[in-house]
This record gives sequence, structure tokens and C-alpha cells, in this order.
Amino acid sequence: MTENQKAPAKRADDGTIFIGKKPTMSYVLAAITQFGNSDEIRIRARGRSISTAVDVAEVLRGRFMKDVKNTVSIGTDEVTDKDNRKLRVSTINISMKK
Amino acid sequence: MTENQKAPAKRADDGTIFIGKKPTMSYVLAAITQFGNSDEIRIRARGRSISTAVDVAEVLRGRFMKDVKNTVSIGTDEVTDKDNRKLRVSTINISMKK
Repeated sequence: MTENQKAPAKRADDGTIFIGKKPTMSYVLAAITQFGNSDEIRIRARGRSISTAVDVAEVLRGRFMKDVKNTVSIGTDEVTDKDNRKLRVSTINISMKK
Repeated sequence: MTENQKAPAKRADDGTIFIGKKPTMSYVLAAITQFGNSDEIRIRARGRSISTAVDVAEVLRGRFMKDVKNTVSIGTDEVTDKDNRKLRVSTINISMKK
């Protein structure tokens, strides 16, 4: 867990930040860093991490970048579990623009 | 808990469905009922219930009402805890239209 918290938040090549089980502030930091490279960032999460994704976007907007505009969309991903069964999991995609 | 599960999902006078700790399907049922009265419904949640709100919207769209259009917005509410301290909590508002 401690090792996990020290690792930088995962980022895709297109600058999307995937939300997992790390503390909210580590994703906020990743998002601020990403805004240094680009005027638009994307935050993505699945399942129980969806509420953390909303926290990240709201902390970012409320404390660090008040003029950011966001667009939110939701969807469903199909994933395969370890017994090869198909499961549906909800997703959120928050796009934030300076 | 059983008593809680049997109670109908809470609805505001304007037809907003507030998501809490009941099973996802009880909110889906409340939403279907609400669509009987109106062409547009709203689903609202705070904090950890945000991911359940997305589940409700996605189950509704995926299984029961495929043509529904949704608009998602996020925000922050300020609440006061039992020691009179102010806390910020993230919110989601999903508006679904037939």
C-alpha cells in the first residue's frame, strides 16, 4: 500500500488520468502536472472509483484552477473477471479545459 | 437494513431521485416509476453514493430505456457535521430525458 501510494498516478499517452485507489490528492497533483503540458485533460474512472474522480475534479476546480470548464459523460465498460465471466461496470469521463 | 430496503426510494417534489445506500435496483425502479409521470427525471447523489448514481443511470439506459439522453454535471455541497464543522462533499446530478 505504501509502495502504491508513492508511485506516480497512472497516465495514458494521450494525457488521460486513470483514477484508482490512491489518495485523492495524488491524482490532483497528476492533473496539475498534466495541465502544464496541455490545455485540456481527461479524468477516467470505473466502478467505486467514480466518486474519487468527481472529488479530484472538484478539488482541482475549487482550490487550484477556478476557471476550468468541465464536461462529464458516463458509460459502461464490459470486463472479463478471473473466471472468464463478462461483467458490466460503470465509467465516468471528465474532460477539463483551461 | 431489511426495513430500509423495503422503504420506497426517496423522491423530492420535483421528481429528483436522491441516491443513498439502498440496492441499485430500488433506485432503478423508482426512476422507471418517475418516467411514468414525466419525460425527464433527475438523479442526485453525494460522496460515496456518486458511483451508485452512475450505476442507476447506466442500468436504466442499458436495460430498460435505450433511447434516453442524459446530461451529467458535478459540483460541491457544503455540509455541517455534528461538531458544527463545515465539510465539502462532491455531488453529481444526472438529468435523463426520454
